[in-house]
Amino acid sequence: MSTTKKAHTTPPYELIYWPTIPGRGEFIRLVFEATGTPYTDIANETKDGISAVLALKDETATTSGDGNPPAFAPPALKIPGQGKDGKALVIYQTPSILAYLGNKLNFAGTDEAEKHYILSHTLTALDLNNETHDTHHPIASQLYYEDQKPEALRKATDFRESRLPKFFGFFERVLKGNEEGGGKFLVGGKLSYADTTLWHVLDGLKFAFPKELAAREKEFPALFGSFYGSVKEVSGLKEYLASDRRLQYSQGVFRYYPELDRQ
Amino acid sequence: MSTTKKAHTTPPYELIYWPTIPGRGEFIRLVFEATGTPYTDIANETKDGISAVLALKDETATTSGDGNPPAFAPPALKIPGQGKDGKALVIYQTPSILAYLGNKLNFAGTDEAEKHYILSHTLTALDLNNETHDTHHPIASQLYYEDQKPEALRKATDFRESRLPKFFGFFERVLKGNEEGGGKFLVGGKLSYADTTLWHVLDGLKFAFPKELAAREKEFPALFGSFYGSVKEVSGLKEYLASDRRLQYSQGVFRYYPELDRQ
Repeated sequence: MSTTKKAHTTPPYELIYWPTIPGRGEFIRLVFEATGTPYTDIANETKDGISAVLALKDETATTSGDGNPPAFAPPALKIPGQGKDGKALVIYQTPSILAYLGNKLNFAGTDEAEKHYILSHTLTALDLNNETHDTHHPIASQLYYEDQKPEALRKATDFRESRLPKFFGFFERVLKGNEEGGGKFLVGGKLSYADTTLWHVLDGLKFAFPKELAAREKEFPALFGSFYGSVKEVSGLKEYLASDRRLQYSQGVFRYYPELDRQ
Repeated sequence: MSTTKKAHTTPPYELIYWPTIPGRGEFIRLVFEATGTPYTDIANETKDGISAVLALKDETATTSGDGNPPAFAPPALKIPGQGKDGKALVIYQTPSILAYLGNKLNFAGTDEAEKHYILSHTLTALDLNNETHDTHHPIASQLYYEDQKPEALRKATDFRESRLPKFFGFFERVLKGNEEGGGKFLVGGKLSYADTTLWHVLDGLKFAFPKELAAREKEFPALFGSFYGSVKEVSGLKEYLASDRRLQYSQGVFRYYPELDRQ
């Protein structure tokens, strides 16, 4: 973990998420990396870190510790000293964690309007993330892909033909409408967690649907040209993406099944 | 619309959402009703209000007006005078609108920790709302239910048997862990938009899956006893729910298909 000036002024953030996959935890990691904020990715970095993830999933608990409510699912963020009576604050749900960190780390625009645009666009990017997951699990998360393959083929076809152009077209218009951003930022004139979140979804889609994305990229030049290309070159992100902390796509949200891609 | 003291101190909020169905707009209506805040439900209350919804869905627009970014989908909230340069602010995405109104209308807890718990639980309740929608549209939103009925039967079975008890069990634990709330509030000692949001999802599920819910209610006494029963008696909500402003469930998220219910 890089040490920066922020090491002395920010609390010791702990990300509680499954190890080995990017998953929804990645949206939170990218915020830390892009802002140069020290954090502990507890299940990937500590020997018994997985126990913190399993404790979060205890379906008998009425708290997640220190007086915080239980969490429905990982990821969660633990911030020592920021909760009730000086205890740790524990929050869950990716958009809620991103909104919290966006405020604390100056990564959520410059005024109240921008703050809400950023949250709204982030929610839309995460909806696309969820719809991507449902292409290989349209019936039930707890079943194997192989047990819902006919449905997955049907769902993925609609996703590629109708949903992808709708989402891509929307974000293309957002980029074009934000003159201050020059095609590099969704909102205003600086990077925010909306940008890192959308960027990761696009990157995951390139992995999961390579033929479909290759065919579509030219239709959305702002999104796949200036935006996708510039975010990955941002200081902090560039180094992270080249490091072994950036986990590989495998069996998480973004999976490569050739039969679900454009034929 | 009732006129209260707040009529003179709050901006003239405009909800932009489809007419005739509760839909996702209902989560926003409930906040206004529970806080006694005047608002205009533009497509239900004004002659040409539907044109505002259609304008929001214009897939060529790079703005939703007054310099705001485009909206991916309804609902949107328009707040005159609160945007850039004194123009209207337009925000979209249900959780983003709820977070905004929660802050403005003192309907989001009493401190920063509670504010984030409330947003997190709201996102979880809205995930349940989305999963409910997918029981009758597991393959594609744009297709008729009848064109995805075998998949819907399979999805609804998993939803009833696995997902409902998981969500209900979670919220039961949240209620039990929040001693200050006495089973009436998810967070702290007062009503918030997390409560109104979860309440509406439970109410919709009772309409869509009456047999399943009747069989499950006794398993979750806090959720279906103290919580469900008390929220609908809250001043403002009680009058609203008995009024003709409360739209009937029909062909929105919550639909009654007997074959998808417990047999």
